[in-house]
Amino acid sequence: MLERFGHGGDLRTAEEAFGLPAEQFVDFSSNMNPLGPPAAVRKALSSYADMIGQYPDPAVRGLRRKLALHHDIDEQSIVIGNGAAELIDLIVRALQPHLTTLAVPCFDEYGDAVRKIGGAVYEIKLSADKQFVLDIEAEQLTSAAAGGSLFMLGSPNNPTGQLVEPELIMKLLNTGAYVVVDEAFMDFVPDESRYSLIREAARHERLFVIRSMTKFYSIPGIRLGYIVGTPRALSGLRRLQVPWSVNSLAQLIGEAVLDESDFASQTLEWLKEERPWLTAQLQAIGFEVYPSTVNYLLLRIPREAGLSASMLQLEMGKQGVLIRDASRFPGLDHTYIRVAVKLREHNELLLVAMMKCINRDGERGD
Amino acid sequence: MLERFGHGGDLRTAEEAFGLPAEQFVDFSSNMNPLGPPAAVRKALSSYADMIGQYPDPAVRGLRRKLALHHDIDEQSIVIGNGAAELIDLIVRALQPHLTTLAVPCFDEYGDAVRKIGGAVYEIKLSADKQFVLDIEAEQLTSAAAGGSLFMLGSPNNPTGQLVEPELIMKLLNTGAYVVVDEAFMDFVPDESRYSLIREAARHERLFVIRSMTKFYSIPGIRLGYIVGTPRALSGLRRLQVPWSVNSLAQLIGEAVLDESDFASQTLEWLKEERPWLTAQLQAIGFEVYPSTVNYLLLRIPREAGLSASMLQLEMGKQGVLIRDASRFPGLDHTYIRVAVKLREHNELLLVAMMKCINRDGERGD
Repeated sequence: MLERFGHGGDLRTAEEAFGLPAEQFVDFSSNMNPLGPPAAVRKALSSYADMIGQYPDPAVRGLRRKLALHHDIDEQSIVIGNGAAELIDLIVRALQPHLTTLAVPCFDEYGDAVRKIGGAVYEIKLSADKQFVLDIEAEQLTSAAAGGSLFMLGSPNNPTGQLVEPELIMKLLNTGAYVVVDEAFMDFVPDESRYSLIREAARHERLFVIRSMTKFYSIPGIRLGYIVGTPRALSGLRRLQVPWSVNSLAQLIGEAVLDESDFASQTLEWLKEERPWLTAQLQAIGFEVYPSTVNYLLLRIPREAGLSASMLQLEMGKQGVLIRDASRFPGLDHTYIRVAVKLREHNELLLVAMMKCINRDGERGD
Repeated sequence: MLERFGHGGDLRTAEEAFGLPAEQFVDFSSNMNPLGPPAAVRKALSSYADMIGQYPDPAVRGLRRKLALHHDIDEQSIVIGNGAAELIDLIVRALQPHLTTLAVPCFDEYGDAVRKIGGAVYEIKLSADKQFVLDIEAEQLTSAAAGGSLFMLGSPNNPTGQLVEPELIMKLLNTGAYVVVDEAFMDFVPDESRYSLIREAARHERLFVIRSMTKFYSIPGIRLGYIVGTPRALSGLRRLQVPWSVNSLAQLIGEAVLDESDFASQTLEWLKEERPWLTAQLQAIGFEVYPSTVNYLLLRIPREAGLSASMLQLEMGKQGVLIRDASRFPGLDHTYIRVAVKLREHNELLLVAMMKCINRDGERGD
């Protein structure tokens, strides 16, 4: 119900549904870094009044230069977007794949972008029994790639939080397929350098990596993402992008947060402690919790609770706590929900509300 | 040269071209209201830090509601966009016209959007002798509409500043054609109610009106525009738009500026005085000035000056004054430039720099 417009984090719909003002909700339905936004954001905002009267740099030169240094790649290998959502749409429109293979459950926008251009979608079902780890058999791989097709994969995947092995991506590329890897949550992964394919994407004509800056820095209001590929491979996408697609505040803040290296290490420290703690607490009250590498958890509601995901979302919403009904992800049923990992005080609120809903007051282990 | 990315207002390119820092240029190449941004913008900015951590409302409910009241139309008749540029691109992609008729010179983006979908463009040449007023003969009208086609017209048109008669638009619609009217600068027209087709667009299945909020309120940095059509006619466009396309600062500021009614009347008063003054001054130093209804002027460089538009732009740029080389608009040659009307003190700077370039020091009438 909260996903009326297809996604979590929609506080305006929550207001309409539950009759509480937006600021009174604790929002576990979107996956923002609770340590953010970093101090640089407020600073950038305060200087922005003098810039708002000028057009954004259409070529986003400053931010591309900084990102290129950050990732040690060429700035011509980067296109900045009005959020990762714009880049997913643009890359699909530029590549015009006849067949796109997705590993479900995954982010809705991959399939939506493909359907918009009239392309076909082939779904590899990730199995709960295998903890949603992607493992493509040799035969499956050849047949999926036979269409000269596109693979769109989240790594870490949303809503499962699972990484894709870089070796697997390389195998896919070797079949002649195009591969788009959505690394929107990669900044939350401690051994990012082992898993991110950014530097490979800057060299390989059929590999693209999409990144988001809004989750890690908690700035979804301004829209900011980027895509990495070879300059030649990105030219088609560049041609389709409308001018000044990236607003100037997003450009300014994007540059500012890249200097916040302490923020990044603090985030990883917090998550290293908080995710296992929240996992254990949720397990103690009966949830099945799938292993995650990032700042959100895919959960299965205990059968004894007798509640579907949408019912639980409704009951939680009445208590001012928003969770994601994960049954809307293709490949998941009404027993799944997704929650963000937040600061301890908020995670406590989540647990208290959860216990009320599933009638398990007092049973929580501590 | 300054239009390396296709448009005016690109201070970053100006920096690279002339070696001056962006803030030292007086920019006559983009057409912002020099009275703006209004006070409401700074106020909205100062409250924004608390909102940046939330996703924008995907349905842009608050701003649509306010605009609906403002124009006295239904809020379902409005789609908000990431600047008018996004809406031009979306409406062309939604309509997929085989043939699109433009009246040139006009804004580049109409033709660019059509070429992106592989559509054909038919150009009606507006004549300098007729002061670029659009006047379509009956036969021309029937033949242009024969393709079941689309007309994209600016009213007021950019770069000419000329309005299109609403009766003419109605005639076009009667041929069975689709019509998109770009009213990006309509707020600057004193008798807006006589010329704007917003209320007609909310009723007529084949008529669309695009508006920009960034020129009148001087907020091009944040990207904000809207399109008006019937709810049914807009459904195709809505389907193509990527989620959260409009950032939350744009939504917040869009709502705030609509309450600034004094700002609107002050702008019209300033323009009523300043445009005729600047026109007379430019004429006195030899420029041909085409009649305009808005905050910019299309000019023809005096032949005696012996300067092309790009040469004049270069000479002016060296003096820190940016003008638009209008020869890049289809239908205009290297004798045309476009300048914004700004505050008196800046207009004086423009005139002084112009006189230096065309070797007419001291000849200016006062």
